[in-house]
Amino acid sequence: MKRDLVIGVDLGGTNVNSAVVDDGGRISHRAWQSISGSRTADEVIDRLVTCVEMTMDSCGRGRVAGVGVGTPGLIPEDSGIVVYAPNVPEWVDLPLQSILRERLGLPVAIENDANAAAIGEHWVGGAAGKANVICITLGTGVGGAIIMNNEVWRGSNGAGGEIGHMTVVENGRMCGCGAPGCLEAYASATAIAEQARELLRGDRMSVLRERSGGDLDRIDAAMVAEAAGQGDDTAREVMHRSATLLGTAVSSLTNLLNPELIVIGGGVMKAGDLIFDPIGAEVARRAYKWSAGILRIVPAKLGDDAGIIGAARHFMLVHSRSS
Amino acid sequence: MKRDLVIGVDLGGTNVNSAVVDDGGRISHRAWQSISGSRTADEVIDRLVTCVEMTMDSCGRGRVAGVGVGTPGLIPEDSGIVVYAPNVPEWVDLPLQSILRERLGLPVAIENDANAAAIGEHWVGGAAGKANVICITLGTGVGGAIIMNNEVWRGSNGAGGEIGHMTVVENGRMCGCGAPGCLEAYASATAIAEQARELLRGDRMSVLRERSGGDLDRIDAAMVAEAAGQGDDTAREVMHRSATLLGTAVSSLTNLLNPELIVIGGGVMKAGDLIFDPIGAEVARRAYKWSAGILRIVPAKLGDDAGIIGAARHFMLVHSRSS
Repeated sequence: MKRDLVIGVDLGGTNVNSAVVDDGGRISHRAWQSISGSRTADEVIDRLVTCVEMTMDSCGRGRVAGVGVGTPGLIPEDSGIVVYAPNVPEWVDLPLQSILRERLGLPVAIENDANAAAIGEHWVGGAAGKANVICITLGTGVGGAIIMNNEVWRGSNGAGGEIGHMTVVENGRMCGCGAPGCLEAYASATAIAEQARELLRGDRMSVLRERSGGDLDRIDAAMVAEAAGQGDDTAREVMHRSATLLGTAVSSLTNLLNPELIVIGGGVMKAGDLIFDPIGAEVARRAYKWSAGILRIVPAKLGDDAGIIGAARHFMLVHSRSS
Repeated sequence: MKRDLVIGVDLGGTNVNSAVVDDGGRISHRAWQSISGSRTADEVIDRLVTCVEMTMDSCGRGRVAGVGVGTPGLIPEDSGIVVYAPNVPEWVDLPLQSILRERLGLPVAIENDANAAAIGEHWVGGAAGKANVICITLGTGVGGAIIMNNEVWRGSNGAGGEIGHMTVVENGRMCGCGAPGCLEAYASATAIAEQARELLRGDRMSVLRERSGGDLDRIDAAMVAEAAGQGDDTAREVMHRSATLLGTAVSSLTNLLNPELIVIGGGVMKAGDLIFDPIGAEVARRAYKWSAGILRIVPAKLGDDAGIIGAARHFMLVHSRSS
């Protein structure tokens, strides 16, 4: 039997998702496992292995050539090691690739989750066919990846592409990374919800009060985006502020790297023009006309599948290089 | 006779400098021409040609293989055309390379001045031997160039590397480019002098009052740096502010591109620790430890010769590719 299938895995903050990805980037045989209760590295790895095995069982174990895994954390190129992962304190110098290879009995390639999503969008998504692309994902954090000459830029020791940690407000909101004024502190889904909560702790009117049942902790970025779309002033103010600072970062990136395309993903992008218009205004105000003239800014196309598809593609690329 | 010499030319804001550059990056047969009174494109080109001819006359015209020219302005890769130059409004779509080739009767390669300086520093200066380098020059503006995998990153249409036009203060000082809060509006030599003048228009004490003979327009960045080095509080405040915001940009660049080296040049770098200490403090505060751990920040080595040496090297590289 020919081993012609690759499984892509996206290890997120609350779930692990896996699926078969074919050589055209199409997905089948999905499986998922919750990891919201899993706290130790071993438990997370157990769930990941279970998830992959579910996909293997459904597609036929003998047909699987290997597994690509997108995971949070810093992974120096081709090392297979998660040096650290901001949200999994226990993962320090974790040889995740060899652990999974042993557990699964198959070749494995691991990749940073933001890079995996970018590889997916670049392969068959919003960035297909473009050589110089910046990918930004507004999620729990702000994921970033820089593709130049069709390659992910990993930097000198694997930490490149941290777009979420560009400073956009000199002494601004404190970021989870410990620095003030990072883009992530304004434009992540987490930050969008938090900024709405802060306004509502004052005496602001907003439909978000009712929709959260008075429990501000229930507000999430999707609720803010929806309320903004319906004209809620408080929600609009938050979205406008977040999108404006995203536009500041996009402008700096345009002047620095002169990309032809910037792809922005994440559930909050459903807000559409409420995000794209302030970005466009900032680019018009701050970016060089020559660079801005060729720049297109588009929404990501693959949604939550970008990570799975990109992780599988990463495996295919590594595998074709080594064979 | 063997044509074994290359002439490098640095076209600056007030002077054009040329010299022979040998294959080890050593300089000889210098010449210069003032262009401070030359306003038209033709006059600037005349002076440039005169300058190169002076160098050719002294080294032996028959030995010159070609000329590399570093010039302000946007030059799409291998186009030989200055699309525009911020400080020479008349230079729009100027085919400078072919004009000079015709006037000089020799092969010519033109390159953006910041890129030329970076190529020089990367060849035989402060960045020699490093693959991933960011070069920043604090001059009339803030010149920037990004070297990745030993190649200057030019971007999708030739405008990459505009480090001076990263936003560092959200609604900050207006930059010459028309945008608020660019690094250049704080950290260029021009901006350092201007910020000192602004403080002195108030009732600040400073040795700069006497040294400028009461004419604030005579204050330049070198005077500010010198006064700061001697403990003048006003000058120190300006230098500290400029260097801190340079550090903010350096931190964002570190998180984004994860370079192994950042080289900073310009006359004001004589202020030494008054600039490096605030940069280091910002990097410690804002940059990822993993990226910052391998980063070195050093002064440029070639001084005003970087542009000449890099322009000549650019010619050599283009010539070796095409032959």
